[in-house]
Amino acid sequence: MDNVLIKILKKPKLKDPILIEGLPGVGNVGKIAADYFLLKSGGIKFAEIYSKYLPPQVLINEDGTIYLVKNELYYVKRKNRRDLIILVGDYQGMSNEGQFEISYEILKFLKNFGVREIITLGGYGTGQMPEKPRVFGASTNDHFVNTFKEYGVLFGSGEPSNGIVGAAGLLIGLGMNFFEMNGICLMGETPGFYSDPKGALALLEILSKFLNEKIDTKDLEEKVKALNDITQKLSEKIEDKSKNEDLGYIG
Amino acid sequence: MDNVLIKILKKPKLKDPILIEGLPGVGNVGKIAADYFLLKSGGIKFAEIYSKYLPPQVLINEDGTIYLVKNELYYVKRKNRRDLIILVGDYQGMSNEGQFEISYEILKFLKNFGVREIITLGGYGTGQMPEKPRVFGASTNDHFVNTFKEYGVLFGSGEPSNGIVGAAGLLIGLGMNFFEMNGICLMGETPGFYSDPKGALALLEILSKFLNEKIDTKDLEEKVKALNDITQKLSEKIEDKSKNEDLGYIG
Amino acid sequence: MDNVLIKILKKPKLKDPILIEGLPGVGNVGKIAADYFLLKSGGIKFAEIYSKYLPPQVLINEDGTIYLVKNELYYVKRKNRRDLIILVGDYQGMSNEGQFEISYEILKFLKNFGVREIITLGGYGTGQMPEKPRVFGASTNDHFVNTFKEYGVLFGSGEPSNGIVGAAGLLIGLGMNFFEMNGICLMGETPGFYSDPKGALALLEILSKFLNEKIDTKDLEEKVKALNDITQKLSEKIEDKSKNEDLGYIG
Amino acid sequence: MDNVLIKILKKPKLKDPILIEGLPGVGNVGKIAADYFLLKSGGIKFAEIYSKYLPPQVLINEDGTIYLVKNELYYVKRKNRRDLIILVGDYQGMSNEGQFEISYEILKFLKNFGVREIITLGGYGTGQMPEKPRVFGASTNDHFVNTFKEYGVLFGSGEPSNGIVGAAGLLIGLGMNFFEMNGICLMGETPGFYSDPKGALALLEILSKFLNEKIDTKDLEEKVKALNDITQKLSEKIEDKSKNEDLGYIG
Repeated sequence: MDNVLIKILKKPKLKDPILIEGLPGVGNVGKIAADYFLLKSGGIKFAEIYSKYLPPQVLINEDGTIYLVKNELYYVKRKNRRDLIILVGDYQGMSNEGQFEISYEILKFLKNFGVREIITLGGYGTGQMPEKPRVFGASTNDHFVNTFKEYGVLFGSGEPSNGIVGAAGLLIGLGMNFFEMNGICLMGETPGFYSDPKGALALLEILSKFLNEKIDTKDLEEKVKALNDITQKLSEKIEDKSKNEDLGYIG
Repeated sequence: MDNVLIKILKKPKLKDPILIEGLPGVGNVGKIAADYFLLKSGGIKFAEIYSKYLPPQVLINEDGTIYLVKNELYYVKRKNRRDLIILVGDYQGMSNEGQFEISYEILKFLKNFGVREIITLGGYGTGQMPEKPRVFGASTNDHFVNTFKEYGVLFGSGEPSNGIVGAAGLLIGLGMNFFEMNGICLMGETPGFYSDPKGALALLEILSKFLNEKIDTKDLEEKVKALNDITQKLSEKIEDKSKNEDLGYIG
Repeated sequence: MDNVLIKILKKPKLKDPILIEGLPGVGNVGKIAADYFLLKSGGIKFAEIYSKYLPPQVLINEDGTIYLVKNELYYVKRKNRRDLIILVGDYQGMSNEGQFEISYEILKFLKNFGVREIITLGGYGTGQMPEKPRVFGASTNDHFVNTFKEYGVLFGSGEPSNGIVGAAGLLIGLGMNFFEMNGICLMGETPGFYSDPKGALALLEILSKFLNEKIDTKDLEEKVKALNDITQKLSEKIEDKSKNEDLGYIG
Repeated sequence: MDNVLIKILKKPKLKDPILIEGLPGVGNVGKIAADYFLLKSGGIKFAEIYSKYLPPQVLINEDGTIYLVKNELYYVKRKNRRDLIILVGDYQGMSNEGQFEISYEILKFLKNFGVREIITLGGYGTGQMPEKPRVFGASTNDHFVNTFKEYGVLFGSGEPSNGIVGAAGLLIGLGMNFFEMNGICLMGETPGFYSDPKGALALLEILSKFLNEKIDTKDLEEKVKALNDITQKLSEKIEDKSKNEDLGYIG
């Protein structure tokens, strides 16, 4: 069995496509952003990626049918602008070697479609719940650094201090070294201990500017609002409780 | 050394054979059902599967002879009905890669025998001891879902919620994607913390209907009865003890 | 880098050679026996086995020179009897795959020298300190079982109940299935928590009978005696101490 | 994807070059020494080594640009003396197999440049803070042992007792067995629980003698001095505190 099996569904002709990646990771920020963007942009699936480095597992749909865990590639054709390829999936590779193999084979495959630039989406876990999540960046070249600084992305503040682990880092790292691709990793600030739509929303704002693409973020904003409400109520409860406890001391 | 070594003992001509799999897993439900069905149907071994992804171990027979841990393929010829292939074994692959490699190579090998459909048998651990174990299903296609619903199999109730891990899932997941095979996984409800003939019996009842094959389940029923007796006695003891303790409080 | 690298030092012509293996394992019983037998029989090294599945480590000699951890093959030419090949080494493979790869490649290499029969040496850990260690056996065929029963080896008593793990099992298991070799594993009873010359001595007694080869076991017997003395003193000390404690209670 | 990817930047002609290696390890002694020596000798990078056995990670520079974790090869041309190759890097291989693969492929690559001799630099962790760190050695041949003894390196004192683990051992172990290279591992004594410039300095003193190369160690000596000052203050504080506590008992 090959390490990575790519099942090709279509062979679209794409116009200087940009790869956008969002797989599970810290706070699932990258995955939420990419899945949401895929939904709103009406991407068309053209390849499925299977690998022995993914969990040996099938997942079950509502109707009782199954699918093998996988990554997927979609394309989005755009008028008068560069086309897009979106990489999403159930899991990342489960070992060091697996992470490398899957990212490498995806890049090798996408080289055929003329991909020259990559935007990877991830989360940067701070353990804090930010009012307005910041977006941190790291890139293969100065040009991207300067461009995204203008969109408000933060660079080189020594964060994230231990680099970028997983597909979001490997795709741009392998891309720059072996596939003549440039890239940038955008990391939305997130507490990191739950799936976080807020960090994803921050990523989409940056993505929208760079792609010159209006993204309808209403549904995601509602999820953020719902999350905020829950957080609000929880913190009020905690406050109430501590007030009562204070009274207890007075009495 | 090849990752998977298949030792071919015979090359039977089979009539549109259905693969039935039961390897060690949750409550050993699948293994017990498949081993029992193999015994009663008088299957003939035609291949042994060895792999470096199985434990590096030989097992010892009663007479002091050994055998290397393996999986095995048997065939059953049936009159006026489709033939069967039964996959049983000592272990599953010991790593993610191993799970994938073994399932993939078995499917590749069985493609030569014309296998188009697969039934995998497994357990669904609930931590409860059900009066009458339910059988859950998950399939590669709607047709199987509908067929097995009529036999009483439950689908799409969101269970098992984290999908199917191991050979029972991979065989149908890889089969549908790379070998043009359809399949269904049947999961017998089981407490999950001991080898459970009761869940296996529930599987055999479904299997019997689908295969249009009377299975003599008497021996397995006796094992279930023996298990029930032990459970009964244990729970009476616990009840007695708690009664005495109650008296203690009165006195 | 190949998974297993065999460095050939000589290409001896051997007369129907028997392979004798003793690598580190339970109580190091097999290793001690094989190393000792090699020393006394004056074997000549003809191959070194290196592998990425052994620890990534060099060991240091007394004089400050190093050697990479390895397994080694020696041959012993015998008059009017079959020649011998002895397999010893610093470590076994560190993973399931590594165990398989190393054993498989050694067998493949030794097939060229006409090896048809294998004796592997190991320990059977009981947690007890036996007066006279028993030797348990498990074999690929009835013939060996019967032969070694006559030498006092115990078979099929359901021990060891979980089979034989590692090279001692794999060499005979892979040998019987893929290299037309027969074999037997001899396991000396041992406490299992220290390197045990006593179990090794028991193995050599059996080996001596089968090979029709007088083995000078004096040096090993002295080690056993030294070990017995230590054990004796320790148990006397414990006895004394408990006597004093008894007196303490009287006073 | 190949296990190890070597990206060649230049193909220098080198005069009988000696390989000097220093990668992360015990107390980072080898890494600090090699990085420092590289800096002072003005080495020129000629190859980058990437591998799926390194962590799947990119690191971030001050300016927001990234690089994939790697090992690197530099060369130093010297007048009237043998040239040098210096191997440094972010990480060692993350598994046994990875350690072997990376060292083996580097040696295979460097064979083309005529490397015959290797000096690997490492730390020997004693848990103690030595006044003047000793340097221990282990070599592939007597000649190196004798040469470095004269420089004050300690050999064969039974230390390090469990050999040398990782690249520092593998490069000379694989080199001697498969690439006709000789080598020596120099290990600077170090506490082992922090990055230790003192042990590195001790290594550089030996290296300087062997290479007949004056190394400007001023910057490293200042780091050692700074570390000594911290240690001094810490131990004074501890002393003061224990004095006060003594007074406490008197009062």
